[in-house]
Amino acid sequence: MLKFEIRSFRAHGFLMVRRLACSLTLLTFIGVVSAQAQTDSLPSWNDGAAKTAVKSFIADVTTPGNAKFVPPEDRVAVFDNDGTLLAEMPNINLAFALDEVRRLSGAHPEWRTNEPFKAILDNARAYLSKLSRDDTVSLALAAFAGTDEKTFEQTASAWLQTASNPTLHRPYQSLVYQPQLELLQLLRANGFKVYLVSGGEVDFLRSFANAEYGIPPEQVIGSSVRYDYKVVDGQPTIERVAQLGSLNDGPGNVANIQLHIGKRPILAFGNSDGDEPMLAMTAANDKPHLVLILHHDDAEREFAYDRAGPSWGRLDKLWDEANERHWQIVSMKNDFRLIFPPLTKANESK
Amino acid sequence: MLKFEIRSFRAHGFLMVRRLACSLTLLTFIGVVSAQAQTDSLPSWNDGAAKTAVKSFIADVTTPGNAKFVPPEDRVAVFDNDGTLLAEMPNINLAFALDEVRRLSGAHPEWRTNEPFKAILDNARAYLSKLSRDDTVSLALAAFAGTDEKTFEQTASAWLQTASNPTLHRPYQSLVYQPQLELLQLLRANGFKVYLVSGGEVDFLRSFANAEYGIPPEQVIGSSVRYDYKVVDGQPTIERVAQLGSLNDGPGNVANIQLHIGKRPILAFGNSDGDEPMLAMTAANDKPHLVLILHHDDAEREFAYDRAGPSWGRLDKLWDEANERHWQIVSMKNDFRLIFPPLTKANESK
Repeated sequence: MLKFEIRSFRAHGFLMVRRLACSLTLLTFIGVVSAQAQTDSLPSWNDGAAKTAVKSFIADVTTPGNAKFVPPEDRVAVFDNDGTLLAEMPNINLAFALDEVRRLSGAHPEWRTNEPFKAILDNARAYLSKLSRDDTVSLALAAFAGTDEKTFEQTASAWLQTASNPTLHRPYQSLVYQPQLELLQLLRANGFKVYLVSGGEVDFLRSFANAEYGIPPEQVIGSSVRYDYKVVDGQPTIERVAQLGSLNDGPGNVANIQLHIGKRPILAFGNSDGDEPMLAMTAANDKPHLVLILHHDDAEREFAYDRAGPSWGRLDKLWDEANERHWQIVSMKNDFRLIFPPLTKANESK
Repeated sequence: MLKFEIRSFRAHGFLMVRRLACSLTLLTFIGVVSAQAQTDSLPSWNDGAAKTAVKSFIADVTTPGNAKFVPPEDRVAVFDNDGTLLAEMPNINLAFALDEVRRLSGAHPEWRTNEPFKAILDNARAYLSKLSRDDTVSLALAAFAGTDEKTFEQTASAWLQTASNPTLHRPYQSLVYQPQLELLQLLRANGFKVYLVSGGEVDFLRSFANAEYGIPPEQVIGSSVRYDYKVVDGQPTIERVAQLGSLNDGPGNVANIQLHIGKRPILAFGNSDGDEPMLAMTAANDKPHLVLILHHDDAEREFAYDRAGPSWGRLDKLWDEANERHWQIVSMKNDFRLIFPPLTKANESK
């Protein structure tokens, strides 16, 4: 490559000098843009009502003397995961569960004849596209239980290293929404404690929440299996038992926010009907608060779905309520200048 | 009072001047002691093995380059409440439950004939001194459930304002161990995140944990009742249902530490057999760790009990294990220079 360039320079010296001049101009331009970006804490958000609402709210609650000032200890923000921070087609928890069933099937001959396992092993897409709630719970228990806590951590991390979203052809870690990463960062810089509150399994979420979102394990609230403390060969360990601990969805979100945080949030961001109770509870906070809803309306850059979306991502009743109560809708098409971060060495397909 | 002092000064001018001189000497002395105290972050701990173990551990895990260095995000410390941070004779949760049963008894005529409620209303001490596990759960559900989350918060705060420990004749808030307050402060100053992990009810613990220990609501892990999300008259609320959510004791501590924190602690402090799993799990951390056990051996200044202590405060099997495994015993008699903080306007009997 270097050899080619040297030869090329010899042959086309004049052209190269012109190119260099162009490059310098480009660099200057990039420098200017980058300086502008530095003054804007949400560079991947387009100017508009949503960006203004977010920035005004943060300014209000952090300015001492402002009527809407909220002390740092009460600046609690909760974010849904699937479809709010991360593309959810397919859902990352479900993708992991399917792969786990395939990986573990050798030890479970009964899965060849029992649904929903049979459908996975036969790759019966029609069945898989209409999983019932019972199917989902069976799958979750098969994938998220049956090991100890250390083994599970290793399994989840190993899966994330290799798995890719089959529709968008990118690894799951690269399907985080860039504008949301900027918002999380802005909130933290303004003294907010940001929690992930998701129907996904809590330890699975933890396997990427810190690296991808900067959300540490103790700020992840999710569904859980039963944990049993056992001493095995003298080593204290936690057995992950195939029994539902808690389902962190809908009303379960609110219950678990009380159990884990003990305070009502002042900011909540969701995208589907399952997030409604968490958003309504935030809207009922006596303190100033902001409720945000992400609208998947960008078929070109991501997906477009709302009322007719899949069960876990449907925006139907919540859509009506949001419009009635003037909760802030964030349009992916209009408010997001960028959807995903550029692919880098760290997040490119493996 | 002022009038008396002026008259007194006129009559005994010389005496007053002498007294003033004495006071100045005293002030100088206090100044010196206070300056000394400032150089010692644990002034209420006597020098000895326990104080040295604590200080060495903190120095080791916070010194970059030290083989035992632990990054701040892994500096998780867990403290039991009753008998570790606060006098537990009687147990503050039980004292609250008994008072609640008395307060609510008008609306529960059936309690006049049903145990354990009858025993409380009849003040049958013999029965109350031997409550069974079932009794305790019945009492807990009667006292900690049946309201919404805001009403419960107000009830707990109101009780704390007036309740006093009947044996030590001090309000419960003043029965926090001064040396432990210094330890909590020292840990926080060294980047530790300190959690309260107790069999007590989580929202009840939260009603004083921040004010007394500086432990915020989201760092309190306790037993819980079931939370049901309800919208009542258009207002989202959390009903506290009379059903056990989780019993945060023994193995339950470890399960809930995983659920809430998702990391093994590097420091754990307990005082009774119920704390054993949490201490054993901490001792099994690959990272440097310190396990501490408070021994109630000071009948003069507090209480003396271990193997024959009440069920919730018994130090029996744990005592043997601690000695075998060389876990650090902290003697209240020998290691604590002071037990309780001096009574002040804020914590004196009301």
